[in-house]
Amino acid sequence: MEDADVVWVASCIRLNLEEAGTGCSSSNGIDYHILHAGCPTDCKSLSFSHGFQFDNTDRKGLGELYSPDAFLTWEGTTYRGKEAIGGKLASLPFQFIKHIITKQDCQPTIDSCVLIMVFGQLKADDDPPMAFHQVFMLKCVNNGWACTNDVFRLGVHNIAV
Amino acid sequence: MEDADVVWVASCIRLNLEEAGTGCSSSNGIDYHILHAGCPTDCKSLSFSHGFQFDNTDRKGLGELYSPDAFLTWEGTTYRGKEAIGGKLASLPFQFIKHIITKQDCQPTIDSCVLIMVFGQLKADDDPPMAFHQVFMLKCVNNGWACTNDVFRLGVHNIAV
Repeated sequence: MEDADVVWVASCIRLNLEEAGTGCSSSNGIDYHILHAGCPTDCKSLSFSHGFQFDNTDRKGLGELYSPDAFLTWEGTTYRGKEAIGGKLASLPFQFIKHIITKQDCQPTIDSCVLIMVFGQLKADDDPPMAFHQVFMLKCVNNGWACTNDVFRLGVHNIAV
Repeated sequence: MEDADVVWVASCIRLNLEEAGTGCSSSNGIDYHILHAGCPTDCKSLSFSHGFQFDNTDRKGLGELYSPDAFLTWEGTTYRGKEAIGGKLASLPFQFIKHIITKQDCQPTIDSCVLIMVFGQLKADDDPPMAFHQVFMLKCVNNGWACTNDVFRLGVHNIAV
């Protein structure tokens, strides 16, 4: 995996926007599905740079990626709206973080959104690497893609089967 | 965790339907969110039994839980519609499976759906336990909840951070 795939989690939104437009994975035919479901593939923000990396200096600005009534559920606690979401992301205690995505899947929805499930590993500051998984929902709002739903969990299992 | 929480993955749909109606987790105020977002909390199928267990004898029938144009992405391959989805679920090679849910989060969406992210562990036949994660989207169709989107992945990380 190359450096360009090491991304800040919230920038997965941008990464996935491009992938949703160009074929998220060759096996699921997302181009066809998006067209068939009526998702606006010409939504103007669809071509964000693949290699975008959040520089960890203005996390609060990430709130602008979300729709006004967006939901973020972070480890079981829910935040609503750009300001609350941006505030939560800004308050996270680490200084530096890197993410490596293991797999991501995209689907269109019946309401012309794009649903994205991501899992991978992250490393915050000097903490040990941890698994994470995250779901985004994107909708074309005012001719630009915005995140309407975001659910994040660390992959910590509390029991064995 | 009690036996009632040991469920077949697709029956998470039913489990979560009830939980979405009664307060998916105490920390995210899903009742309020659903009402605020306009999700039809009186949708008649909302009160499925919590303890429902799929008996592994009619997996193809699980296709009936999905909407006619639903998407299932299973380990990167996408299936569309009740028949294709039911066929895929019926074709899975194990005889017996049990799932233990570690965490589940629910959110309403801007289009009055319910988004559910689940992760946990599963054990199929005599295979070692494996982590899994899954996302469902539910929509009230003809006064009953149906699954419109389903994404499933085993939690196998191919690289270390």
